[in-house]
Amino acid sequence: MREVSIGLLGCGTVGQGFVRLVQQERFRDLRIRRILVRDLNKERPGIDRALLTTNAIEVIDGCDLVVELIGGVHSAGAYVRRALRSGRDVVTANKALLADSGRELFAIARESHARLGFEASVCGGIPVIRAIERGLAGDSIESITGIVNGTCNYILTRMEENGADFAAALRLAQDRGFAEADATLDVSGADALQKMQILAELAFGVSSHARIRVHGIDDIAREEIEQARSRRCVVRHVASARRVPGGVELRVERRELPESHPLAAVRDENNAVIIRGRAVGEMLFVGKGAGSLPTAAAVLSDVIEIAAARSARQDVVVA
Amino acid sequence: MREVSIGLLGCGTVGQGFVRLVQQERFRDLRIRRILVRDLNKERPGIDRALLTTNAIEVIDGCDLVVELIGGVHSAGAYVRRALRSGRDVVTANKALLADSGRELFAIARESHARLGFEASVCGGIPVIRAIERGLAGDSIESITGIVNGTCNYILTRMEENGADFAAALRLAQDRGFAEADATLDVSGADALQKMQILAELAFGVSSHARIRVHGIDDIAREEIEQARSRRCVVRHVASARRVPGGVELRVERRELPESHPLAAVRDENNAVIIRGRAVGEMLFVGKGAGSLPTAAAVLSDVIEIAAARSARQDVVVA
Repeated sequence: MREVSIGLLGCGTVGQGFVRLVQQERFRDLRIRRILVRDLNKERPGIDRALLTTNAIEVIDGCDLVVELIGGVHSAGAYVRRALRSGRDVVTANKALLADSGRELFAIARESHARLGFEASVCGGIPVIRAIERGLAGDSIESITGIVNGTCNYILTRMEENGADFAAALRLAQDRGFAEADATLDVSGADALQKMQILAELAFGVSSHARIRVHGIDDIAREEIEQARSRRCVVRHVASARRVPGGVELRVERRELPESHPLAAVRDENNAVIIRGRAVGEMLFVGKGAGSLPTAAAVLSDVIEIAAARSARQDVVVA
Repeated sequence: MREVSIGLLGCGTVGQGFVRLVQQERFRDLRIRRILVRDLNKERPGIDRALLTTNAIEVIDGCDLVVELIGGVHSAGAYVRRALRSGRDVVTANKALLADSGRELFAIARESHARLGFEASVCGGIPVIRAIERGLAGDSIESITGIVNGTCNYILTRMEENGADFAAALRLAQDRGFAEADATLDVSGADALQKMQILAELAFGVSSHARIRVHGIDDIAREEIEQARSRRCVVRHVASARRVPGGVELRVERRELPESHPLAAVRDENNAVIIRGRAVGEMLFVGKGAGSLPTAAAVLSDVIEIAAARSARQDVVVA
């Protein structure tokens, strides 16, 4: 493989994890050329300060492949568009950006013969995007159902196991780093909806949704979980997408599931996705949905695949 | 995508399932050109008789991509070698062939710039090969553990649920089509070992094994399962591969697992694989490990990916 120079946008926990993984000997063909940060003076152990810059254009225009890890839709969107328009491949973990303007970005990528990798945007380390896009390419997907927000699942299992109420379980999640200070996006179901939108568009190829129903977990009472337990059930925050007449129905809601249900066994901050295909039947994927290293590993898997494809194209041209 | 002509070797249940899937409208760029069979006169519903031939060379030399579904190592090996040497891409579901001469076949493929797809060879419809090869490319795999033989799992869960003894559960598996008349390969653990060898080589890149330990399920007594149940445990036939000093240790053995263990919830003919990566932690994949359509869908997913890559290479050459 030829050397691929990477421009990294953002150097928070996932970005630092990414740098750490790329520095392994076996990835010597990948070189991080520049890193965009907001504050040059912040402490970032193991990161070479000479790579840091506050100038995004310099990072984007000086590399082969852009890794976008700043999040949000505005600046991130502008940077990703600029990179794709110039024919640069982009890898992103930004689900909000994809949910907001995925269609447009994929169109730009197609026009410019650039690639847009986004495995890390949904369910962190679980390669669910690859499974839908590639592994199930020969099948027709009927539905996708899963636990795609680790914060909510952590809160629900804490309520279940510790008998905590919602507020106490949320504080515990915040203390352990599984929830932001403002957890609204997570506990309202908005984050799960964004992720399910991305998966649904990939699986069903439609962006118009016949019905959307979103219910968070912020109004859950301890009694709901206790009553479920008395029926040998658990409460899980389940997101789903399925074909209905007129499009796709998206739902994010609390569900009472029997203890024997595969999603009932998904505890703590884990994520799980059940994909039902016409030919393959039901497939279940479970794993860590977030966290610095799982997400960074997913970003790196996209970078490796895109770099290999780029290198294969160049080999052919030279030959 | 340009039209890709497919030479199909073998037209048993998986082959017929493959033909059915390929005939869908959205795969009109894939054309099955010739099909190798042993008996031209056998009834094969939905298969165009004009495609059938008993001449393997005609099938191989007249197509872009060979799909090998005849099984066994001798004829299948000769055909796959011939196809790869001539630069043709090959997709196979043949785990015995890969376990026997995978290294050699991959070397031939590399030399001839051909691709060898084998997603269907292990765990049928579960895209576990893709997950190891691509999804975890950025991670270091520490161990692989799983239930990779659906016949054994079907037998064990029948013994568990129906109180059947081994012989009765085996007959039930045979009646339901989950076991061959001669189930030795399955119940001895040999099939699981072959599959774990393929996964281990992919994950750890070594073909020498420091230790191999294989124990089947054919000597299991009903009491073993009953005793496990009295301890709130179940018995599962578990295959595993992990790094040890001097190479990789492969094991296939019965294990008593607590009911809360993720593999305990895997019932009937299902397969499951747990991959532990340094960065992503534990990931679990569960799904149908065999059967005509799940396996055919996995074969087709490889065909689609290889056909798209072939088409991209040609686009570049033309441009």
